[in-house]
Amino acid sequence: MTKSSSIGVFDSGLGGLHLLGNLRKILPAEDFIYLGDTARVPYGAKSPENIAHCSQQNVEFLQNQGAKAIVIACNSASSVSFKLESKVPLFGVIEPSAQEACSRTHSGRIGVVGTRATLNQNTYVDSIKRIRPQFEVFQQACPLLVPLAEEAWDNDPITNLVVYRYLTPLLEKEIDTLVLGCTHYPILRSSFEKVVGPNVNIVDSSAVGAYSAAQNMKEQGLLENNNRVGKLRLLTTDHSPYQEAMAARFLNEPRPSPIELVHL
Amino acid sequence: MTKSSSIGVFDSGLGGLHLLGNLRKILPAEDFIYLGDTARVPYGAKSPENIAHCSQQNVEFLQNQGAKAIVIACNSASSVSFKLESKVPLFGVIEPSAQEACSRTHSGRIGVVGTRATLNQNTYVDSIKRIRPQFEVFQQACPLLVPLAEEAWDNDPITNLVVYRYLTPLLEKEIDTLVLGCTHYPILRSSFEKVVGPNVNIVDSSAVGAYSAAQNMKEQGLLENNNRVGKLRLLTTDHSPYQEAMAARFLNEPRPSPIELVHL
Repeated sequence: MTKSSSIGVFDSGLGGLHLLGNLRKILPAEDFIYLGDTARVPYGAKSPENIAHCSQQNVEFLQNQGAKAIVIACNSASSVSFKLESKVPLFGVIEPSAQEACSRTHSGRIGVVGTRATLNQNTYVDSIKRIRPQFEVFQQACPLLVPLAEEAWDNDPITNLVVYRYLTPLLEKEIDTLVLGCTHYPILRSSFEKVVGPNVNIVDSSAVGAYSAAQNMKEQGLLENNNRVGKLRLLTTDHSPYQEAMAARFLNEPRPSPIELVHL
Repeated sequence: MTKSSSIGVFDSGLGGLHLLGNLRKILPAEDFIYLGDTARVPYGAKSPENIAHCSQQNVEFLQNQGAKAIVIACNSASSVSFKLESKVPLFGVIEPSAQEACSRTHSGRIGVVGTRATLNQNTYVDSIKRIRPQFEVFQQACPLLVPLAEEAWDNDPITNLVVYRYLTPLLEKEIDTLVLGCTHYPILRSSFEKVVGPNVNIVDSSAVGAYSAAQNMKEQGLLENNNRVGKLRLLTTDHSPYQEAMAARFLNEPRPSPIELVHL
């Protein structure tokens, strides 16, 4: 593998395309290969052992495709990344998002929303406490938000109500910073903004994760240095009839490449 | 395998325990072995090929455990049951629910709600049309209802709103009968009743499937004929921290047997 190899990105499903879209904007010359493990989506309700097993298979698949580095575009998979073995650099989204939250909070009271799997691992709490032991972290699992994002019920009164219900306990704790700890949640950002108001910082783990991975790859000398336009391969482990439309929406590109089916 | 063998029941996850609860009430002397494929839940967004692959593994596992018959407590799996091979009788939920809907409608206008996977297979439409070709069937996929049931947001204004939004197109078609074509949906029955009002019949595929499987097993001479109290084994393919509480709720038994972890 060389500098001209692809950057691998994986997620449990298609939500990670949101992170990939951010990464493509930052690194337009790079080739990307995206693997959505749609046969086993979602990871957010699986056990840590099962998530690690699936994630390890994703890592090995992308390595075998010649990826020069791998970005884990999934908080649930990032929460078990310490268990993963990889021959190429592996970048998760939790550590950089925890850092960003620490640098943006004034009160030291941080809320984190995510899947049950991510929050049960306590990786956000541990990462934040490692940086600032005195900070207080309040977590809230939001199992309905992934299906709401996939239904495309963004800018929707029902989604506002659901977000309001999930966030009320965090707002009662007077957080001043909220980490969106799931790649799907930025799609519902307008609901989060409506509910938390202008005085709570929102940390988008998908945007922060993309920026941080790009910075790290640059520092490690892994990037292309020319003006070509990078290519994109999209792979999933199962076919669903709406996946092309969902991919276009999450990637924010009107006509992404056709999706190839692979078996791990 | 003999009359004293267990009856196998499987579902993609724990929702099928609702059907099992019905079955245990009808057949209290029988032993049951329940397999929830929680490592791969949900099936409702998977391709038919993938659902058939998973379901075939479930069938073989239950056969190897000595099941004398197998009940598919999942509409998505039932929708591909014609692809499954089994050495023991296999009972699905769709055919009996279609029959029940045909016998209860007066107008011949039937609505079916379920997962995308179930409805894309058109099994309800085909089954109803085989019985009464002139009947009209209107389908609506409801991806948010499984997570709402799992969140235990039953009797909840948000669930009422979501059900109202999903059912409005069906009510505009003036259906007089609605099939709840997913094992989770009966948990949200009060919302369905509120939204459709007293003039629309509700067919619960979980109750109808249980009753029909019990009748068929009786006719085929598969049942125990004594007064013992049947045992229950609960198996899942992944462990999740809330599964005991969810099992108790779906099964409607305060202290069900402990859940064993198995790998297929």
